[in-house]
Amino acid sequence: MNDISNIYYGRLPEDSPYVKPFRFYYTQNGKEKSWDLLKVHDSVSVVIFNTTRQKLVLVKQFRPAVYHGLVSEEAGADGRSIDMKKYPPSLAVTLELCAGIVDKPIPLAEIAREEVLEECGYDVPVERLEQIISYRSGVGTSGALQVMFYVEVTDQDKVEAAGGGVGDEIIEVVELSLAEASKLMEKGSVLTSPPAFLFGVLWFLTNRAPKA
Amino acid sequence: MNDISNIYYGRLPEDSPYVKPFRFYYTQNGKEKSWDLLKVHDSVSVVIFNTTRQKLVLVKQFRPAVYHGLVSEEAGADGRSIDMKKYPPSLAVTLELCAGIVDKPIPLAEIAREEVLEECGYDVPVERLEQIISYRSGVGTSGALQVMFYVEVTDQDKVEAAGGGVGDEIIEVVELSLAEASKLMEKGSVLTSPPAFLFGVLWFLTNRAPKA
Repeated sequence: MNDISNIYYGRLPEDSPYVKPFRFYYTQNGKEKSWDLLKVHDSVSVVIFNTTRQKLVLVKQFRPAVYHGLVSEEAGADGRSIDMKKYPPSLAVTLELCAGIVDKPIPLAEIAREEVLEECGYDVPVERLEQIISYRSGVGTSGALQVMFYVEVTDQDKVEAAGGGVGDEIIEVVELSLAEASKLMEKGSVLTSPPAFLFGVLWFLTNRAPKA
Repeated sequence: MNDISNIYYGRLPEDSPYVKPFRFYYTQNGKEKSWDLLKVHDSVSVVIFNTTRQKLVLVKQFRPAVYHGLVSEEAGADGRSIDMKKYPPSLAVTLELCAGIVDKPIPLAEIAREEVLEECGYDVPVERLEQIISYRSGVGTSGALQVMFYVEVTDQDKVEAAGGGVGDEIIEVVELSLAEASKLMEKGSVLTSPPAFLFGVLWFLTNRAPKA
């Protein structure tokens, strides 16, 4: 996963299907204002607990946006001068909940079910996915909806040769014990994870984790 | 706050100081790939607990990105055809932690301290701000760092006529009891809040809230 090379940046093409930036104009309390933002897809996230192994099932992947966040202070405008020794791409491999964008008109639980299979290799009926909470995955520059699900899986739900993403995706499945998950939530933690991961894990530890 | 009118969208100017979109090219495991993303500012967030009132101190504000997320399916390409009766701007008033972007070279705790004063009107020495955890505020399209702080304030720290934001900001300070905060974390909640808010509140309830 960490074999990353030949990094450079270029203009965002006009027809990017993923990032559609624009300026939003409005008048608030009589004052004209504007805000720069972009349209991104709504999404689902899934807290997965394997009851056979008593482990949380999570995913790791290289995130270009995180890598850029790390190097952008020092790299040149086109990124070609990045010092790959100083900034190994492994720094931008993130630990996250299983998740996926809503890119077809089917129920959210179905999309969550597909992501659990495609990313983590567990085939579970949609009825086992429990909707937990919904929120806005970004409020500053994007205002997309994210709906969080919870599902318990067993080793019997595991499908051989599934998981790890589809197509070009390179996703590593990671299992975390309850003790390991608790440790990540401790004061002083420095994580390369998004806040939805933090909430999902803490929600699980608070509400669903078997008591020690 | 909810007096919002005259909404429309336009192109993102080339020189936007807030949103700098581009395409990131890289080679992973021998395969050429690209990812569309944008550079946004790093930021801080602050969980504030008023011990005099036994209330969490939070902020509400109209978020253009969330409003756009709500209306974009139905509105025309330029947004001028938005049905303001169907989509009152109050739908996009979000409940969040006190937060702010890192836009000057001073310690993060100082920036957090300033935000607590500017947004919420409490003047506390920087030593009282406790760093809790750090994470990436977005991993898909932006990879900015966010560092979360915790601070306990009292009514005596309140500064008359402070809070509510500076300059053009229109921010409402909101107090939430422990019971109200717990209720927001319940299964089935539909929030117009970001996941960092969810984590911050649940972290507080788990680690710092006075036991009932």
